[in-house]
Amino acid sequence: MSSYEISDRNKVKRAHQRGHYDHKTVYEILDSMPMCHVGYVIDGAPYVTPTLQWRDGNRVYWHGSSASRMLRQAVGQTVCLTVSLLDGFVLARSPFHHSANYRSVMAWGTAMQADESEAKEKALHIMMEQYFPGRWEEVRGNTDQEMKATTVLYMDIEQASAKIRMGGPIDDEEDYEAVDCWAGVLPVMSGYGPLQPDPLMKPGTPVPDYLRKVRIG
Amino acid sequence: MSSYEISDRNKVKRAHQRGHYDHKTVYEILDSMPMCHVGYVIDGAPYVTPTLQWRDGNRVYWHGSSASRMLRQAVGQTVCLTVSLLDGFVLARSPFHHSANYRSVMAWGTAMQADESEAKEKALHIMMEQYFPGRWEEVRGNTDQEMKATTVLYMDIEQASAKIRMGGPIDDEEDYEAVDCWAGVLPVMSGYGPLQPDPLMKPGTPVPDYLRKVRIG
Repeated sequence: MSSYEISDRNKVKRAHQRGHYDHKTVYEILDSMPMCHVGYVIDGAPYVTPTLQWRDGNRVYWHGSSASRMLRQAVGQTVCLTVSLLDGFVLARSPFHHSANYRSVMAWGTAMQADESEAKEKALHIMMEQYFPGRWEEVRGNTDQEMKATTVLYMDIEQASAKIRMGGPIDDEEDYEAVDCWAGVLPVMSGYGPLQPDPLMKPGTPVPDYLRKVRIG
Repeated sequence: MSSYEISDRNKVKRAHQRGHYDHKTVYEILDSMPMCHVGYVIDGAPYVTPTLQWRDGNRVYWHGSSASRMLRQAVGQTVCLTVSLLDGFVLARSPFHHSANYRSVMAWGTAMQADESEAKEKALHIMMEQYFPGRWEEVRGNTDQEMKATTVLYMDIEQASAKIRMGGPIDDEEDYEAVDCWAGVLPVMSGYGPLQPDPLMKPGTPVPDYLRKVRIG
């Protein structure tokens, strides 16, 4: 695990809201939510694309179609990869103290492209193992043509900033008595719903163990 | 409702995956998920910050602390505001045909700042009405100091691109017979959990109707 510079960008000082910069916190948040938003700058304009990320140590991967102009143009550029989980709405006694509970990581690095075959195959294997351990051996292998159609990018995290807000509202002292409205947290939950088997699947195909164990959020 | 230019950036041609560019689709996705990711370019580098968005016609708002350097620097600049909902993992018979079900909008515009008091107050009122209709009248009003500490940004959507992928895996014809693994969709669900009342709330405060009706996702 390489070390990376501590960022104080966006440091926000609020009750219940703190910046966390240790690797463990950053990695835990990344590992809780496969969906990420990658920010590129193309011709001076920002592009924020949702995609799936996965991690190998301090290296974060994402991928897409080789036809994507955005992916091609990102190579060698600084990108910002952000992962966020909205955990709830915090309802306070004044509009100002309303807030959201969340966990988020902003991570910066230089986008690199996994070059042909071996590196790309390894990266996709890591992705599958993280999401659905054991599934790589059950599916057929990618063809050369499929590998060519897939672009895998990665970055080694150079800077990162994690932010977490949790807990109930923090109101001004006098408002606890003066204001009568409901106050508290409306939690936002993420989870997996019931499996939807492909109707074209062979009858009797068992549900693999990894699908019983997956967690998100 | 103003018209805006149709974008063909990121147009991806895949089975079950299509670009949608009509206002209705764009607005429906924005209205399904308050969390957004706003992309700024500062000194040539990308920043992707999670925040809450709300909408008034073709205008999208977001806000933050007036201390935020990012918010201040964004004013007058092109920003990309992205809203995404991960709806599921699509498990196919080859790694290549694995996919995700999702709904997303990338929207571009010029970030503007709601100037003092009236415009800002109106924007925050719209936010509260969208999230928790009626609550604005229950809480105390913001003080001048609180209003000063809040920066509200907005943009009129100039370009937008919506993408939706739904449904099961689309495999190569021969793989339906040749590959035996489980195939289908692992749905990702979002929703609200049980309310967590503030222990400091006055006993007997009723749960407002808007908290029984809220939906997300």
